[in-house]
Amino acid sequence: MPSATSAAADSHPAGARPRRRAGRPPAAVLDQDTITTAALRLVRKSGYEGFTMAALARTLNVAPSALYNHVASKREVLVLIQDHLTSFVDVSAFDTESWDQAVRDWAWSYREVFSKHTPLIPVIAVLPVADAPKTLAMYEAVSAGFRRTGFPQERIISAIVALESFIFGSAYDVTAPADIFDSGSMAASTPNFTSAVERLARQGLESPADAAFSLGLEALIAGFGALRR
Amino acid sequence: MPSATSAAADSHPAGARPRRRAGRPPAAVLDQDTITTAALRLVRKSGYEGFTMAALARTLNVAPSALYNHVASKREVLVLIQDHLTSFVDVSAFDTESWDQAVRDWAWSYREVFSKHTPLIPVIAVLPVADAPKTLAMYEAVSAGFRRTGFPQERIISAIVALESFIFGSAYDVTAPADIFDSGSMAASTPNFTSAVERLARQGLESPADAAFSLGLEALIAGFGALRR
Repeated sequence: MPSATSAAADSHPAGARPRRRAGRPPAAVLDQDTITTAALRLVRKSGYEGFTMAALARTLNVAPSALYNHVASKREVLVLIQDHLTSFVDVSAFDTESWDQAVRDWAWSYREVFSKHTPLIPVIAVLPVADAPKTLAMYEAVSAGFRRTGFPQERIISAIVALESFIFGSAYDVTAPADIFDSGSMAASTPNFTSAVERLARQGLESPADAAFSLGLEALIAGFGALRR
Repeated sequence: MPSATSAAADSHPAGARPRRRAGRPPAAVLDQDTITTAALRLVRKSGYEGFTMAALARTLNVAPSALYNHVASKREVLVLIQDHLTSFVDVSAFDTESWDQAVRDWAWSYREVFSKHTPLIPVIAVLPVADAPKTLAMYEAVSAGFRRTGFPQERIISAIVALESFIFGSAYDVTAPADIFDSGSMAASTPNFTSAVERLARQGLESPADAAFSLGLEALIAGFGALRR
């Protein structure tokens, strides 16, 4: 995943580099990109519960008041993060491929991005999109694709929400441990479940999460495809 | 949602009631049910980030060491919570209804339970089921239903995982604010999305979340149904 923002956060233009004070690491040049990248890094390291404005200021080596010169609130940082992550979701297929293939490419890309940032799913799944231009651009591209293919307009949002719900839930599954369905000492009392788990294991799939995602996604694409006029 | 455990936690059998020490609320009778109920209440009040064994001991008015007489770890409490919540998910239709209707009833019931406990989804979505007898009983009932209807055995687990992923993601959507898709000042640059949001709003649905869930669930049921032999 290319990240221009990460690159920007890790380098200082030579002229702008602040003079180093003894015993203190140099403060990063503070802007919204730097703040977004640092916030993402903080969530990755400490989980969402470790993400406070005070902790964010500490990792940037600035006073909280300096942070508030660039963002109004923690909520604004979350919107910046949402928008940053969504910018990596690939919607380009809606311009070049059939509707089926475009939905497929978009959904796999979307799951890929969020499977690397599951601690943010509970927040982003319910975050209003009004101030997130890249997120809105994604929804515009997907909505336009659904409209062009003759999908009933009053159901476009419901279809997108259903797909997103499936994608968010599936992103967690990517991170599930391999033994999640081991019935352990209760195998004897769960014969149908235990046998189904064994039948899956016997296939030796490289990624059971991919198999489940593909199965569900193809059912959604076929079912929604049938609604087109 | 009936809860025998809650009732147990809120009352003391007259004879067992501990004598009240001045300035200190009475300690609850400590067992796994009491601990489970208190842990659920704590997560509801403080979010998952507020759920520590120390905080749990405080809400029960016991020393952490007393807690560890009944549960080995925070992980064990999470398994107890998972099992408690899953026990409210209704799988009875797999015994009485057609496969389609049974999947439908199960999925709506499952989403209902978890939409009230979204802070636990990130944990429960990746928690192994080995020590959770009620959770295993749910999977057994669902697996048996899929098997009886002629669903390919090697794909039963993938189908259940896909449905669960959709259900977990949809549980978040139940709690989303009504203005989540308001495009605000960017309406002009997102005409297809904004128009789709308006077309949905014009329908005056009581619950847009229910509409999205129903749309996705019916597509999954139809798609999976077609795989039966």
